[in-house]
Amino acid sequence: MKLVSYAFEGVVRVGRLNVAGTAVQAFHGDAGSSMLTLIRLFDQLHQPDETHTDWVELDRVQLLAPIPRPARNIFCVGKNYRQHAVEFQASGFDASASESIPESPVLFTKAPSTVIGPDTAIPAYLDYSESTDYEGELAVVIGQGGRNIAKADAMAHVFGYTIVNDVTSRTLQQTHRQWYLGKSLDGYCPMGPTLVTADEISAPERLQLRTWVNGELRQNAGVADLIFNIPTLIETISRTMSLESGDIIATGTCAGVGIGFSPPKFLRHGDRVEIEIQPIGRLSNPVLALRE
Amino acid sequence: MKLVSYAFEGVVRVGRLNVAGTAVQAFHGDAGSSMLTLIRLFDQLHQPDETHTDWVELDRVQLLAPIPRPARNIFCVGKNYRQHAVEFQASGFDASASESIPESPVLFTKAPSTVIGPDTAIPAYLDYSESTDYEGELAVVIGQGGRNIAKADAMAHVFGYTIVNDVTSRTLQQTHRQWYLGKSLDGYCPMGPTLVTADEISAPERLQLRTWVNGELRQNAGVADLIFNIPTLIETISRTMSLESGDIIATGTCAGVGIGFSPPKFLRHGDRVEIEIQPIGRLSNPVLALRE
Repeated sequence: MKLVSYAFEGVVRVGRLNVAGTAVQAFHGDAGSSMLTLIRLFDQLHQPDETHTDWVELDRVQLLAPIPRPARNIFCVGKNYRQHAVEFQASGFDASASESIPESPVLFTKAPSTVIGPDTAIPAYLDYSESTDYEGELAVVIGQGGRNIAKADAMAHVFGYTIVNDVTSRTLQQTHRQWYLGKSLDGYCPMGPTLVTADEISAPERLQLRTWVNGELRQNAGVADLIFNIPTLIETISRTMSLESGDIIATGTCAGVGIGFSPPKFLRHGDRVEIEIQPIGRLSNPVLALRE
Repeated sequence: MKLVSYAFEGVVRVGRLNVAGTAVQAFHGDAGSSMLTLIRLFDQLHQPDETHTDWVELDRVQLLAPIPRPARNIFCVGKNYRQHAVEFQASGFDASASESIPESPVLFTKAPSTVIGPDTAIPAYLDYSESTDYEGELAVVIGQGGRNIAKADAMAHVFGYTIVNDVTSRTLQQTHRQWYLGKSLDGYCPMGPTLVTADEISAPERLQLRTWVNGELRQNAGVADLIFNIPTLIETISRTMSLESGDIIATGTCAGVGIGFSPPKFLRHGDRVEIEIQPIGRLSNPVLALRE
């Protein structure tokens, strides 16, 4: 099922897309109140009883991020594709390590306040970040939480998948050593357009990720190339802290980010970033320069 | 005012302590529903109208962390006391930087799921963290949020102060390069015992922080020794992301943590950690070894 959060007639709803992806049908009751609630209640739903509202054409609604406000920070994984780890190291922007390929997952977070939806503008803050960069990523959404989840059981805890753009201020990422601030500027996490339930993506390692800036293909990698795959990430995180329903794990970006080029290709006013992973869709956001 | 969250007769409440610190009086209505709500509504309260319930003796209630579940990750500042920065660098556990004294604040986070209350046991996970360490810290709680808050205006955004113990697995902090996981094990953030409103602490730089382990004084420093003081931290963070009501900024720990000793003095089963900053009180927690 392809789930979406959207605004229609001034109300935020949660619904599912039809097969053609042209119309949306809202969930009723508690399940329709927010995506986080829907995830918790999902196993108790009896389709199609819960979704007997009318279908609404997609062009009449505004798609939001599937989870517009996560309940806690988004888990992010750094340097989780080999070629990206090498390009990041070569860029000189990595103040965190002397080696390029990490021996253990590099875990950091983005604030929940960074999340924006499809087609919403990514702010390029002119006053203090001339180095706004994109990072296309597959994100895993946790269904049933838990602690000490073994690799073998991990996939049963995946509710579904979405796309995030782990937008980064390279300067701030470097200035503050730890990456949190440089990753957490308001608006720095476009997410969507849909959240596809796990039953429709039986083999996430077969997914392909592509990112374009102004139509130019910049990133193109298979999720199979992850250094630490999804079960390993779930095992690693849940070994230290309980995963919770609705947690989001952005699995890392592949080669082709702005700092991978010489000179770097940072985002500028008027750019458009598109990230595609099918069947999730294409997450497209314009870039808007902002002086405060 | 000294505010507390507590459980009494099976219900979680928010209240204020009497001057002697021997009894607590609950807030009524919405303001009493949670500390986060109280913080948002605080300026609209008309004391003492809002707190006309009976006083209850403190020994009849269970004190909880003032904010048992923050709305997003806790902001933490690394290496923000000079002597601690030096001891951390000398310990060899700092994989993040080549220099000891940072030029800009080192910002990272702890998950909201780490928070525990006074007297609750700090878990020392035997299976994968033989290196559980304590870090006594003054924490700032934000009242009115905002973006681009200048240093000169910063103190007006401080709602109050509490104590946190930024418990850390030194091994995991090092293994994952970024500090998030090693700081975010379940139960790794004792907080409390009270939240003192800003009007009662006119000069936080005059506060003194002391930490004891089993009665042995380990940390003893003045908040005046912070490398980046509270206004600087608020300006730095709010320059990149909007601060929100109820946000918690742990300002950093001073010299005397376990890795500052040779050999390191990590926490062990049966230890008791006490952190005192008056007038907030003394945050005391036992350590419980846990094998899962």
